[in-house]
Amino acid sequence: MSESALSIAQSIRDGTVKAVDVVEGTLANIARLNPQLNAFVAVTADRARSEAKAVDKARAAGQVLPPLAGVPYAVKNLFDVAGLATLAGSKINASHPPAKSDAALVTRMKSAGAVLVGTLNMDEFAYGFTTENTHYGPTRNPHDPERIAGGSSGGSGAAAAARLVPVTLASDTNGSIRVPASLCGVWGLKPTYGRLSRSGTFPFVASLDHLGPIAADLRDLAAAYDAMQGEDASDPACAQRAPEPVSDSLDGDLGDVRIARLGGWFEANLTSDAQAAVDIACKALHVTRTVTWAEAALGRAAAFIIGASEGGNLHLDDLRNRRGDMEPLSRDRFFAGALVPAAWYVQAQRIRALYRGAVRAHFANTDVFIAAATPCAATPIGTEWLDLESGRVPLRPSMGLLTQPISCIGLPVVTAPIVRPGSLPLGVQVIAAPWREDLCFRVAAALSARGVAASPMPALHA
Amino acid sequence: MSESALSIAQSIRDGTVKAVDVVEGTLANIARLNPQLNAFVAVTADRARSEAKAVDKARAAGQVLPPLAGVPYAVKNLFDVAGLATLAGSKINASHPPAKSDAALVTRMKSAGAVLVGTLNMDEFAYGFTTENTHYGPTRNPHDPERIAGGSSGGSGAAAAARLVPVTLASDTNGSIRVPASLCGVWGLKPTYGRLSRSGTFPFVASLDHLGPIAADLRDLAAAYDAMQGEDASDPACAQRAPEPVSDSLDGDLGDVRIARLGGWFEANLTSDAQAAVDIACKALHVTRTVTWAEAALGRAAAFIIGASEGGNLHLDDLRNRRGDMEPLSRDRFFAGALVPAAWYVQAQRIRALYRGAVRAHFANTDVFIAAATPCAATPIGTEWLDLESGRVPLRPSMGLLTQPISCIGLPVVTAPIVRPGSLPLGVQVIAAPWREDLCFRVAAALSARGVAASPMPALHA
Repeated sequence: MSESALSIAQSIRDGTVKAVDVVEGTLANIARLNPQLNAFVAVTADRARSEAKAVDKARAAGQVLPPLAGVPYAVKNLFDVAGLATLAGSKINASHPPAKSDAALVTRMKSAGAVLVGTLNMDEFAYGFTTENTHYGPTRNPHDPERIAGGSSGGSGAAAAARLVPVTLASDTNGSIRVPASLCGVWGLKPTYGRLSRSGTFPFVASLDHLGPIAADLRDLAAAYDAMQGEDASDPACAQRAPEPVSDSLDGDLGDVRIARLGGWFEANLTSDAQAAVDIACKALHVTRTVTWAEAALGRAAAFIIGASEGGNLHLDDLRNRRGDMEPLSRDRFFAGALVPAAWYVQAQRIRALYRGAVRAHFANTDVFIAAATPCAATPIGTEWLDLESGRVPLRPSMGLLTQPISCIGLPVVTAPIVRPGSLPLGVQVIAAPWREDLCFRVAAALSARGVAASPMPALHA
Repeated sequence: MSESALSIAQSIRDGTVKAVDVVEGTLANIARLNPQLNAFVAVTADRARSEAKAVDKARAAGQVLPPLAGVPYAVKNLFDVAGLATLAGSKINASHPPAKSDAALVTRMKSAGAVLVGTLNMDEFAYGFTTENTHYGPTRNPHDPERIAGGSSGGSGAAAAARLVPVTLASDTNGSIRVPASLCGVWGLKPTYGRLSRSGTFPFVASLDHLGPIAADLRDLAAAYDAMQGEDASDPACAQRAPEPVSDSLDGDLGDVRIARLGGWFEANLTSDAQAAVDIACKALHVTRTVTWAEAALGRAAAFIIGASEGGNLHLDDLRNRRGDMEPLSRDRFFAGALVPAAWYVQAQRIRALYRGAVRAHFANTDVFIAAATPCAATPIGTEWLDLESGRVPLRPSMGLLTQPISCIGLPVVTAPIVRPGSLPLGVQVIAAPWREDLCFRVAAALSARGVAASPMPALHA
């Protein structure tokens, strides 16, 4: 089951395979491999079979099939799925009533013909970078089940990396798509803030929350993103922009895209392992310039305070009434967030605005910036500390050191899995100006075409 | 000196009077009456004479004069005026270096030919509704010098009411234009949030601060507003909109404007005096419907928390290092604001957004809403408490009870002085949907044409 989404859709369109058979194969694979990985929290077998049947029926009736017809996919369990309680990784939410309808992006995937096979594990309330979920168990990295898959979208990263499904949906507030994509060795897209509708998903930090796809194949990533684009009035932050498809930006031709490596903060908070991944990408792209965003540390601090404060506000009732049922690995940070003074929060928003303006100016001379996606490769489950050039830091909140300063100003990023045979996966961030996802994909495709980025196949399948 | 701005400009254009003579008359009047009122904190006589001379010279050279050529005006002392420290009512700011250039709106008034004669008293840092400034003394109401002029733009209200200048500029965060306009019996405009540039003014609450004009004559109010409109990239909140002049919306014809009276919160927090002013306006406009915005109390509470928090943030260094030099009447509220938890602030912003959406829906059936501008007429200086139908409240923060729920969602408002012979002045708010200042002016002009709104001449001039 390592076929790409687009090849599955093509085979179904060609009639060489039926959607129901694809679904049965997918369900069998999940049953066989998920116990080792703990990526899926729920499998929606009935719904998947029914959606697949509808695809086969449409084809039999001679209808033109939509682009992802019959493609199995799964979603982080903060997406509403009609009939299921939206867990968002939480034990508290398990007693919530089932969602009455699907999240907006699930509806769009369905319109594109995709078949939902389940929901995926995550850090509770998306506050974490490791998916060591105490309630539902840790998600394990397909490349080494003793190690983390990254988070908070760990289930989405692991399921795509293990080829359980070709596409997963995830969310990214401070790095929650890019961190698991990096540690699991798959492609991930965190689009521009406001690009994809968040309607019908469990929020974390309204002004920082993004949704996006993860996939083992770059073309699948683009196809899923293209299928989900478009305005949606039910998410007030969703921009009123027509879709700007990227699937035709994948020819590997760089054109005259001006690329630079990010220095300063982005080189100080790294292991040599992650530095090596950036070197590989930059060498392949003939990058000679390093640019430093002087305000990145301030921007990251601002994002940290804003996230903690808004998270503390969102979960104030849980902190008061259900603290014993909250994730012990993040509860203390939610408490701290609820105690932050408003004067700090206001200052953080001010700094964020200044930082955004400063970074905007850097795009006058550079189209795309390259930085590591994580400070290090996947660590063993239970790891408490991380040693960087800059000193020892607590691992769990620090896995997002390099992603937070990008998302807090809403820039689009594709995370590219760098080819390093014999090593654990590591990704680099391909970062563009707002609304220029096309440039992220163009550069990602060049990395792919030049043989330095590809999703490694885990040994599970051996 | 009770001539309107437009008639002064016309006389200068006609050559029946010289701008320098208008300025000399204005300066003499200020010298005679300001000691009773304490509206002006600084008189910019040299600059005024120089600007007036330039107008006379331009006319002598046969140039076409701009619309407000030779019209004296003054600004709240939070506007930058080149060469003066921008006090914002504060003793601390008196040691700041002088402003290097004028505020954006001062520059626009200058382009329109207006002549700046001075800067006006206000509550310290704009945090107050009474202009009982302990450092610079209270501004006194021209209709009864034992009473407050309202605030925080008390100097702007009193100077216009006393006909010291036909137009003043002011700011309104929670009611600081509308409260003094109501208590002093003049017209005031708080435009849509984002309409007029705030560049070069001392801020209070970035997401709530508005600037606007005050005038004894409605046509002058419109002319000053029209002269100041237009985008300005140096204020990031200033909308990219072309000017939408209102001076042609003053014919007194109501057309098919649908008008309703605001009930609920806006009728519960009133004295019978203020209720009577609303009755007069509504009767003249044949208003038969009362509409209740169910969320107004929540909206006001949200504005209160947001203002206190952002104010506390802005003045954190002053609270730490200069608290003895801060206004004793508001220092405690700044301290309280600095101690608000971020979780409250975030909740207040959430409620504000919900309230904004709820009010937006009310504009489907109604174009203009009428409400009192202040709960009562001007109170004696030093008054601590206010007795309303709903109970006893502290006066100083409560004078904005009826204005805060309008400005916190950025709606445009003209405050109209209601004619009530033998009584102290009181104004009503004429409130429209965002960017529909034209409707505020249309209804205000109808009130004027029907003889129920006009600025009373204070006895000072008798």
